[in-house]
Amino acid sequence: MDILIKNCNLISMAYGRPKFEEGMSIYISGGKITEIGKDVTPKLNSVIIDAEDKVCMPGLINTHAHLSMSVFRETLDGYGLQDWLNKKIWPMEDKLQNKDIYYASLLSCLEMISTGTTTANDMYFMTEDTIKAALDLGVRLQATRTIIDTDKKQDEKIEELENLIENYSNKYDLITLNVGLHGLYTNGEETVERMTNFAKEKQLPLHMHFCENEKEVEDIKLAYNVKFPVDIIEKYFKGNHNILAHVVKVTDEEIDRLSKLNVSVSHCPISNLRLGCGVAKIQKMLDKGINVSLGTDGQGSGSNLDMFETMKFTALLQKGVFENVKNMDSYEVLKMATINGAKALGLEDKIGSIEVGKSADVILIDLNTEVTNPKGTIFSDIVYNTKGSNVSHTIINGKLVMNEREIENIDKYAIFSKCEEIIKRIE
Amino acid sequence: MDILIKNCNLISMAYGRPKFEEGMSIYISGGKITEIGKDVTPKLNSVIIDAEDKVCMPGLINTHAHLSMSVFRETLDGYGLQDWLNKKIWPMEDKLQNKDIYYASLLSCLEMISTGTTTANDMYFMTEDTIKAALDLGVRLQATRTIIDTDKKQDEKIEELENLIENYSNKYDLITLNVGLHGLYTNGEETVERMTNFAKEKQLPLHMHFCENEKEVEDIKLAYNVKFPVDIIEKYFKGNHNILAHVVKVTDEEIDRLSKLNVSVSHCPISNLRLGCGVAKIQKMLDKGINVSLGTDGQGSGSNLDMFETMKFTALLQKGVFENVKNMDSYEVLKMATINGAKALGLEDKIGSIEVGKSADVILIDLNTEVTNPKGTIFSDIVYNTKGSNVSHTIINGKLVMNEREIENIDKYAIFSKCEEIIKRIE
Repeated sequence: MDILIKNCNLISMAYGRPKFEEGMSIYISGGKITEIGKDVTPKLNSVIIDAEDKVCMPGLINTHAHLSMSVFRETLDGYGLQDWLNKKIWPMEDKLQNKDIYYASLLSCLEMISTGTTTANDMYFMTEDTIKAALDLGVRLQATRTIIDTDKKQDEKIEELENLIENYSNKYDLITLNVGLHGLYTNGEETVERMTNFAKEKQLPLHMHFCENEKEVEDIKLAYNVKFPVDIIEKYFKGNHNILAHVVKVTDEEIDRLSKLNVSVSHCPISNLRLGCGVAKIQKMLDKGINVSLGTDGQGSGSNLDMFETMKFTALLQKGVFENVKNMDSYEVLKMATINGAKALGLEDKIGSIEVGKSADVILIDLNTEVTNPKGTIFSDIVYNTKGSNVSHTIINGKLVMNEREIENIDKYAIFSKCEEIIKRIE
Repeated sequence: MDILIKNCNLISMAYGRPKFEEGMSIYISGGKITEIGKDVTPKLNSVIIDAEDKVCMPGLINTHAHLSMSVFRETLDGYGLQDWLNKKIWPMEDKLQNKDIYYASLLSCLEMISTGTTTANDMYFMTEDTIKAALDLGVRLQATRTIIDTDKKQDEKIEELENLIENYSNKYDLITLNVGLHGLYTNGEETVERMTNFAKEKQLPLHMHFCENEKEVEDIKLAYNVKFPVDIIEKYFKGNHNILAHVVKVTDEEIDRLSKLNVSVSHCPISNLRLGCGVAKIQKMLDKGINVSLGTDGQGSGSNLDMFETMKFTALLQKGVFENVKNMDSYEVLKMATINGAKALGLEDKIGSIEVGKSADVILIDLNTEVTNPKGTIFSDIVYNTKGSNVSHTIINGKLVMNEREIENIDKYAIFSKCEEIIKRIE
């Protein structure tokens, strides 16, 4: 069904348009944005959304998530990264079954829709169940079968990934694939070489954790006998389109070297703080021209998938921790959560901005509350003082998946119960 | 009217009670908590709130706010503290009129109620208008007339403060007073001596900004010819009950020395980040036994008054910036937002925990959403994954001021309009 969004305050994030336009209308047909203007005439039987006083912007893009980890929410306070993985997460993950992955992913999809995120870059396993959840709820997903050298069954995992690519690539509007490599510290050099070549051959993005904390860096240096982890990236990842998550513990020299490669960083500030990792030097990366996008990480360390919170942390940390108020222009932060995310996933021609011809991934934001009045500079209002709960409407691929905060045709309480059962069983 | 809260999940914050109790009921009568138990029988005509599945906890206490600054929300991105005050805030404040203060404070009171904060420690001027707003909306307030040496009219300001103490002390359940001294960098030594003596004589807490950023510290050292700002505190503030806001740029030695004085710190992490000040060493202060409470600062630098956000930033910054996941036990963070706040204001016998005999400042929290399921460790759920918008009911001094997120008898849209007019006029 066609949708007309009438009379909104538009932050299109489109290159060449004004950054902010009042009184705009947007027409959506066949999953695409077909018209943007002051006066747009809807066809008969279109859904008309009166967006007066509401902000309209592209749906947010979460470039580093583990949707199945919703069930681990707030269970593991006080653990550092390696202990957390070894003693808690991996033993619990061993007990996860396919239907657990489906329900946990459904919950994450609900969370995304309700907080205005329309696309997630997922890294996990039993991937078809996450894809099924995303398709059932109409959420855009870049998926993978993560390669991780814990049990030496690499060939099986790579075969699973090949099957996913075969079965889902170019077959669903909502689904794309990439090559997920867990990390350099969890895979040997042989696997790294094999998977970077595999990604080149398939022409898919490569998604990997990188330099999340100091111990990881030390482990990589020892295992690979290199001076810097970035030495490995230069050796094997050239010619790939790489999405590196975290990138907290890198030197200024490494940032400079990464800027010369095809690297998008996925900055996950909340998870990084929670796991005691530190604060990534994001303003430096932007200054060097690196494409920085934003991620929440899984809820085990990131608590939730609210990308508005991630924007706020991103901006405040760069100003406050590095004691420079000029850091992080608000509009640049909005780019990180939208068009930079699209670039990271190789989807910049399809999503990340509101432009005629692009897929209709669009959200409306209601700022008419006691917490958000009076409005100031609109981009600062969004970055520093908007929460996922201010999102009133979410449209993905032209479909209205949340209307006035109501997500229809799904029994969310049944999903909550299923997820509670899962964590009780595996913890 | 009496209120019975039935069947809640209680986090009472009361010393000697279990930290968490399920299936509890709380009876409220005459503004006080009169009974807590599994089976509580209400009197005829009591309001009965079914709190099944909801968390009940004490209303949050914001120990450093400027309620009239709601109108400055998101207008001043990119300024550092001193430039922000000199070039932006003070010139705008010069144009504020009494009715502006009233409406701006009304908006802040609405914000507090809607996000579960029941008490604020305000620091501003034209104070009677803020008190009137708090009384009109039923919000608990510790107020002051701030002494600041910008225009040399100190005698007039002190007279105003004396009149406030005369007119409002011990006359309203909701209103207490303290002595507000803007800062050491904005007052000469003579005023500092005079006001610390004044506070001793009146037996009131003394509320002051302290060591917010590096430049303030340098200015104090120069103006007072001391090695450390804490030298002044030791010289003049002994014998006072002091609430020091910020305390970002202090050495470990100064923390040790502050711990030997009667000092409560009001930690304002969001404002500190926004103004590029840095991150206060809160875990160190707690380890030294300092009473640390939480504040939002004014909305000009803090964006909003949502104390849940302040709890989350507090916990994450201490873990992440200082790279120690053992920092900031979640229950300790809850104490900072409740009972420690009460202690800071000298009100620990009256508020800050749910105990029979205390004033009924109580909130209910609804965690049955897609963002907060499944629940994990309850204290972590609150600190890391609850927002002001999860508060369903707010009770202050025994009065139900928000019921299922509805604040009755007030036209909030009229207040929004008034506040928009104010900032448009003075900016």
